[in-house]
Amino acid sequence: MITSPDNEKLKTIRKLRQKSWRRKLGLFVAEGEDLVGAAAAVEWPAEFELRAGADVEPELLAEVSALGSGSRVIGVYRQRWSEPHGRLSVYLHGVEDPGNVGTVIRSAHALADGPVILGPGCADPFSPKAVRASMGSLFARPPARVGDPAELPGRLLPLDAHASATLHEARLEAPVVLCLGAERAGLPAELAAEAVRIPVATDSLNVAMAATVALYEVANRMAAHA
Amino acid sequence: MITSPDNEKLKTIRKLRQKSWRRKLGLFVAEGEDLVGAAAAVEWPAEFELRAGADVEPELLAEVSALGSGSRVIGVYRQRWSEPHGRLSVYLHGVEDPGNVGTVIRSAHALADGPVILGPGCADPFSPKAVRASMGSLFARPPARVGDPAELPGRLLPLDAHASATLHEARLEAPVVLCLGAERAGLPAELAAEAVRIPVATDSLNVAMAATVALYEVANRMAAHA
Repeated sequence: MITSPDNEKLKTIRKLRQKSWRRKLGLFVAEGEDLVGAAAAVEWPAEFELRAGADVEPELLAEVSALGSGSRVIGVYRQRWSEPHGRLSVYLHGVEDPGNVGTVIRSAHALADGPVILGPGCADPFSPKAVRASMGSLFARPPARVGDPAELPGRLLPLDAHASATLHEARLEAPVVLCLGAERAGLPAELAAEAVRIPVATDSLNVAMAATVALYEVANRMAAHA
Repeated sequence: MITSPDNEKLKTIRKLRQKSWRRKLGLFVAEGEDLVGAAAAVEWPAEFELRAGADVEPELLAEVSALGSGSRVIGVYRQRWSEPHGRLSVYLHGVEDPGNVGTVIRSAHALADGPVILGPGCADPFSPKAVRASMGSLFARPPARVGDPAELPGRLLPLDAHASATLHEARLEAPVVLCLGAERAGLPAELAAEAVRIPVATDSLNVAMAATVALYEVANRMAAHA
């Protein structure tokens, strides 16, 4: 039983709140039974797991929690990235909010069974907030990354709230990559050509909601034509 | 210029972090230019506004911020509720997460131009997190509330991830009220009859994402048949 805050495992968990340490160690933290269970479900082994009352004093575990939610279990995992793949996936460009990144990872898994591909300027998908927002989909469908959108494979389908064409008019030939930018900055110019907008929506959907709706629409149409 | 943390306006803002004070005073706080601008856009007057550097020392404003985001302006507003209305609206039952409540308020505004109706056990839509998640839609489409789902008007369309019928099969006769429960507890039995599920989705969509997708689908079909 760990009874000292100076324990090395607790120190590691504290460090992993910081992106620089996550990058250096190649590790990340998942808090709570749901997430630790999601890792186990896909046989993604923990480097170590700490359970309150069994492995560590509950107060000490609460102290290292990044989420302040009184987690009863914390697991530390080695990061994994996938390659872009799948009939339908999502590319995010410059999406800085970790909650949005995690939510889109969850939506892409739930609606398209596909991964999210992260481009420049995106939040770290292994940050505590992104991991929590993904609700385990991070383990089921680890994200991919590209340094330049030119590397993206397949038919790119950029979304832009101000485009004149709508998603209904888009040609869908698998593999399709839905491309979304940050809410204000949008997509880079080379991706903004041939963009479509989400019908019936005003421009006030956030990037996670826009991705979710577009995934739903495209997954439905691809399923109908499969 | 306010220079004392004991100023009455600053004290009011601090109190309004608590639901009990929000209920007692009938007021709430909106932080940041976007939200204060959204209130002004619909001519919802502030009880008072504090701007960093103009009305108050920036450090004192930062200290009362509930969001820790270094807001440059904070407005305090009187709460307003609407009555259930509109061709398409959303009823939430027992949705305790304020971020989800705010996000659905935003989605209902963006996709259906309608209000959210809050039933028993929902988070306070005037809490700081809900206000922020609504991104101004709280001002544009204030929520309604009912003490009992039996009071809901119109055609009720309950969503349930485990229903056998899909949203595609649902009859849509305006006014339509999409009904969603909390992620684990779901809807009460009297609402769960004749529920439909979102096609192509696994059961891992959260309530805000499920509401967003369903609003999109139903708004599209109602627009096509209008």
